[in-house]
Amino acid sequence: MAPVVPRSGDTIFANIEHVNVELFSLTYGAIVRQLITDLEEVDDVNKQLDQMGYNIGVRLIDEFLAKSSVSTCTDFKETAEVIAKVGFKMFLGVTANVVNWNADGTSCSIVLDDNPLVDFVELPDTCQGLYYCNILSGVLRGALEMVSMKTEVTWVRDMLRGDDVFELQVKLLKQVSEEYPYKDDE
Amino acid sequence: MAPVVPRSGDTIFANIEHVNVELFSLTYGAIVRQLITDLEEVDDVNKQLDQMGYNIGVRLIDEFLAKSSVSTCTDFKETAEVIAKVGFKMFLGVTANVVNWNADGTSCSIVLDDNPLVDFVELPDTCQGLYYCNILSGVLRGALEMVSMKTEVTWVRDMLRGDDVFELQVKLLKQVSEEYPYKDDE
Repeated sequence: MAPVVPRSGDTIFANIEHVNVELFSLTYGAIVRQLITDLEEVDDVNKQLDQMGYNIGVRLIDEFLAKSSVSTCTDFKETAEVIAKVGFKMFLGVTANVVNWNADGTSCSIVLDDNPLVDFVELPDTCQGLYYCNILSGVLRGALEMVSMKTEVTWVRDMLRGDDVFELQVKLLKQVSEEYPYKDDE
Repeated sequence: MAPVVPRSGDTIFANIEHVNVELFSLTYGAIVRQLITDLEEVDDVNKQLDQMGYNIGVRLIDEFLAKSSVSTCTDFKETAEVIAKVGFKMFLGVTANVVNWNADGTSCSIVLDDNPLVDFVELPDTCQGLYYCNILSGVLRGALEMVSMKTEVTWVRDMLRGDDVFELQVKLLKQVSEEYPYKDDE
């Protein structure tokens, strides 16, 4: 099923660059509410948010490459820095830090002090297993896959669960050859 | 059911003002896709988008009143102009025009040339009855209800249906006394 058909990354109204962050966070909250109502199981909501994010990420990478001055990153380390310093800034208006590299440079953490998705949000007790921001992990995974990096992205710390920051662990699983991974039916 | 609990309009990260419009439009697209998959009937999708918008509108009005320099509007005409010139600019980064007033000043149209929600979007034939941007009509209705104006908001023209602009007709049904209309269970 393909209710919304993307048009190869072009935009009708190139003069509009930003929208208000509260509108965005409330709109995102509406998605999460809807999924919780529809799917009931928190694990299923986490999976669906991740899948939505993946679908967004595979398209957003075009926008990123077109608007940033970033050329090809030489390795995963450089890529992680670009995501943290340029990507998060461009899309969410925040910057992040890359920390906790493993010895062989295939795993790191991206740490966010600020996260506009969680404006207005507190999780009730019934949603304690929810990764509210799971769309972000999907976006990263999708965008990275489009630049040939297959990754696993998981939350390590989450301010909605009482942690002091948001921390996303990004593990590089393999470098894949370029292909067209987006399936319209997913 | 109240999976996401709003905290009376405050924001954790007051320094973040905007997010990227493509991220927003793709995220909104993900909602619409999800609703079409879940609800199947386009009319039900239209209703749910409107209801989501209503819930957003009743919260967004606080942000609007706090951040705009707008004080109490004297009448519906002034209110409509403020929505078009200040509200749309603040939240979507576009301005709109108010036209087609009826004789007694209780109905008008808000016309948008630009609409960031529809970036990347073309409707397939199976979705021709969809009001893709129906969340906006709900936002207006919800926000206006919080300032004591009960309205009916409907799409008259829609660029995704081949029209040259987006036109929202706003009819004032009645001025209601201030009350707290938001129900957590809706």
